[in-house]
Amino acid sequence: MATKAQVLYDFTAEPGNNELSVREGETITITNQSIGGGWIEAQNSRGEIGLVPEDYVEVRITDRPKGTLGHKARHYSHTYTQLRCNGNDPWAVFDNNASGGFSNNWAAQPEGTETGKNSSNAWGSTSYGHPQAYQGPGKPTDLSLFLHLHCLAFQIGEVGPVWEYPDSQLDCVVADPKKGSKMYGLKSYIEYQVSPNTTNRPVNHRYKHFDWLYERLLEKFGSAIPIPSLPDKQVTGRFEEEFIKMRMERLQAWMTRMCRHPVVANSEVFQLFLNYKDEKDWKTGKRKAEKDETVGVMIFSTIEPEGLPDLELLEVEQKCEQFSRFTKAMDDGVKDLLTVGHEHWKRCTGPLPKEYQRIGKALQNLSSVFTSSGYEGEATLTDAMTAAGKTYEEIAQMVAEQPKKDLHFLMETNNEYKGLLGCFPDTIGVHKAAIEKVKEADKLVATNKITTTEKVTMGKRASTMSYALQAEMNHFHSNRIYDYNRVMQLYLEQQVKFYETIAEKLRHAHSQFTTM
Amino acid sequence: MATKAQVLYDFTAEPGNNELSVREGETITITNQSIGGGWIEAQNSRGEIGLVPEDYVEVRITDRPKGTLGHKARHYSHTYTQLRCNGNDPWAVFDNNASGGFSNNWAAQPEGTETGKNSSNAWGSTSYGHPQAYQGPGKPTDLSLFLHLHCLAFQIGEVGPVWEYPDSQLDCVVADPKKGSKMYGLKSYIEYQVSPNTTNRPVNHRYKHFDWLYERLLEKFGSAIPIPSLPDKQVTGRFEEEFIKMRMERLQAWMTRMCRHPVVANSEVFQLFLNYKDEKDWKTGKRKAEKDETVGVMIFSTIEPEGLPDLELLEVEQKCEQFSRFTKAMDDGVKDLLTVGHEHWKRCTGPLPKEYQRIGKALQNLSSVFTSSGYEGEATLTDAMTAAGKTYEEIAQMVAEQPKKDLHFLMETNNEYKGLLGCFPDTIGVHKAAIEKVKEADKLVATNKITTTEKVTMGKRASTMSYALQAEMNHFHSNRIYDYNRVMQLYLEQQVKFYETIAEKLRHAHSQFTTM
Repeated sequence: MATKAQVLYDFTAEPGNNELSVREGETITITNQSIGGGWIEAQNSRGEIGLVPEDYVEVRITDRPKGTLGHKARHYSHTYTQLRCNGNDPWAVFDNNASGGFSNNWAAQPEGTETGKNSSNAWGSTSYGHPQAYQGPGKPTDLSLFLHLHCLAFQIGEVGPVWEYPDSQLDCVVADPKKGSKMYGLKSYIEYQVSPNTTNRPVNHRYKHFDWLYERLLEKFGSAIPIPSLPDKQVTGRFEEEFIKMRMERLQAWMTRMCRHPVVANSEVFQLFLNYKDEKDWKTGKRKAEKDETVGVMIFSTIEPEGLPDLELLEVEQKCEQFSRFTKAMDDGVKDLLTVGHEHWKRCTGPLPKEYQRIGKALQNLSSVFTSSGYEGEATLTDAMTAAGKTYEEIAQMVAEQPKKDLHFLMETNNEYKGLLGCFPDTIGVHKAAIEKVKEADKLVATNKITTTEKVTMGKRASTMSYALQAEMNHFHSNRIYDYNRVMQLYLEQQVKFYETIAEKLRHAHSQFTTM
Repeated sequence: MATKAQVLYDFTAEPGNNELSVREGETITITNQSIGGGWIEAQNSRGEIGLVPEDYVEVRITDRPKGTLGHKARHYSHTYTQLRCNGNDPWAVFDNNASGGFSNNWAAQPEGTETGKNSSNAWGSTSYGHPQAYQGPGKPTDLSLFLHLHCLAFQIGEVGPVWEYPDSQLDCVVADPKKGSKMYGLKSYIEYQVSPNTTNRPVNHRYKHFDWLYERLLEKFGSAIPIPSLPDKQVTGRFEEEFIKMRMERLQAWMTRMCRHPVVANSEVFQLFLNYKDEKDWKTGKRKAEKDETVGVMIFSTIEPEGLPDLELLEVEQKCEQFSRFTKAMDDGVKDLLTVGHEHWKRCTGPLPKEYQRIGKALQNLSSVFTSSGYEGEATLTDAMTAAGKTYEEIAQMVAEQPKKDLHFLMETNNEYKGLLGCFPDTIGVHKAAIEKVKEADKLVATNKITTTEKVTMGKRASTMSYALQAEMNHFHSNRIYDYNRVMQLYLEQQVKFYETIAEKLRHAHSQFTTM
């Protein structure tokens, strides 16, 4: 019996690439579900057959083989739903509904009782693009598991808690996009070379691998560390040079940011991505990473603020409020700058150079009229006017090309920060939920829902989370200062050059007129 | 019996100035026609009484006292109609109809038979603003009249015929606009001081005096020399500082251009305007100038190309065609530059500085968000970003103010040339009409309309006119080269300063960011 699927999003086929254009709402018949590489082969009602992105369709639930499509959702939403009716799980139960409100079932249990992933849980939904629930962690059976967790180490610096930074900064270069193909040339893709500075040995990755990494990092660290989205997935025109260049630049920026984060950079999954030895190593590593149980709020269980005093709830709350206010304000500021920058970009590449060009043409035109006068001895004037006209045409071109040299980087940096800042409401939400739960602790003790010991543990947990948040904010701030310093310098440097070049060109044009 | 008048144009009263607002088509009753100063007192149908510009109304022909309003037309049209049925008048009879076509009654008569003004002729029309006919010259009774005419002297220079230029260039300064009043404060006006470099003694003139001068010059020289229009007459807001400043600047430019023209500058009426000793002298001179009979095509009779060969008709025609093509092409070029310049002006004073201001504000805003971070050690960044933001606000202001410093002069010069070029079609039309008539001469001889001697005389006249036109074109070209050289230098010099200042400001802003 044929497997039917419902199309969730419009998809336009890349010409000459064996793809099939489909429209949202359309029902298609899956003719080959084991194509792999994120694609399926399908037939539409007109009998046309071609490849369609797996993520773009929803296989009818009755026909869907279990476990094959579940984790393909394009965008994880940071919505945590409680899957087990377990009031005693301290990490799994921040219930952050999609509308942005917080209700939670924070509960406490004595320290040392760790939770693991309940592997029997099914994915909550099969509608891609809608908020996804992901499985809360279950109970571990082996305490030695701790040894395998990456430890989120931090120390107290001048500015308060800071992550522990490595002596040498990890970095990598994303370069050399190459078109590859598989399935006997049926499918084409772009592969990038990623070379970490630790080995200088390039590994190949497709966009979908970056996307896989992003999802792993989000799942694992999302509660504590803002993991910015990757550059947009784009389906049409993805083999065009301009698009590939831009995507590579953004993947580079994303990787650089991830490399800079000591916790992320040091994580097993990130190291796998940069250093896998061969296809087998990569596949084994992938499977292992997908089974990683220290994800979601579990990440906080890997933090041991040894020797540090527990923070008072009031302080935790104030810090959280401060970060919340700051990130909101910066988000507004960044968006404002982006809006202005975008308009300026349009003006600089549209009407403004056209106007300079018209000024240039008008001067040259007048000059050639003058040349036709038949009057002797005005060659100096007409030559000078022609030169001035050409200068304004050159200026037109400079104006049109300048944004790529300066505004582009200011925009890209702000775009990155917009992405980062967009992650904070969820991260902060997790904290706020924890704080609220601690506030309710007295009532919970009174109604025998938790013990006094558990209440103390809850306070400790909140304190630990606050240390982590502070370390993360300090990481954010120091990066922000570095990034804005750098991008503003670059911007202004290029602007200075731009105006100096124009002045120089005009000075030369000026010198060609005779002084009388 | 009350004198009625028809309102020809809308007029809005200047508040507090005893004026009466009237609408086109309205009938008003003149209550005092001897107010003077270009004004009449009138009453509208609602019984309101006030002053109305004389030029704005047409007094009913039956009621009009003879000779009082005839030459008040605001704009002379260069339309010459033959008022006498005299086929023998060689100068009076270029019939250039308003639609731009040429038909003429050029005829010749033996040299030495000069024509004078027929003082009994009435003005042809009383509808102001419509093409005006002006009286053709009649026959002189006294040959010594020649001695009183200013001679249009020219010589053959490197470029061909050129006017004879004085050793020292006449110039004058128009300055010190002062508000004066007359009729016991009933009427206010602005008076300018005009100081010629020959005497350095200032004389006072109101706009209406300039207008009077313009009309005299146009009437006298308009057939041979382009006399550009004065800056627009403006009725409302004429006491506003900005308007007065702009009008003065334009009157200055107009006077400078007139001073530069050797024929105009040397004319009795122009010298009167600059050098009158007292009110009596001025009034006597005015009356004399208004009675000047060497006007219109008569001006060519004052040219004696002694010792120069008569030009062949073909050469005359070619020169005329060349000038016609050139002035048309330059008119197009100038108008194009004005259009572009006008749009650039709007952009530079409108959206562009607003955008720089918004960039400046966005940077400052982000800087103040950063200041609120609570993170230590970012004062250098936030100070630098604030400074950069302020720099862009300063740039916004510079951008908005720059057009006044450079584009303004480029626009004014081109506006002046637009005005000058607008005079050429009529001047050239007079020539073309003469050429056509010479071409018809054979036919006229054959039908006994003119004698062979008269035909020869016609050829000589056309040759003389061509010498004058060539001298004028050469004057135009040399002035054009001077003016465009000067204005382009000024424009580019200011543009260089502008971009250099911006670069310098940005360099300073750049230096405030720390190098890391």
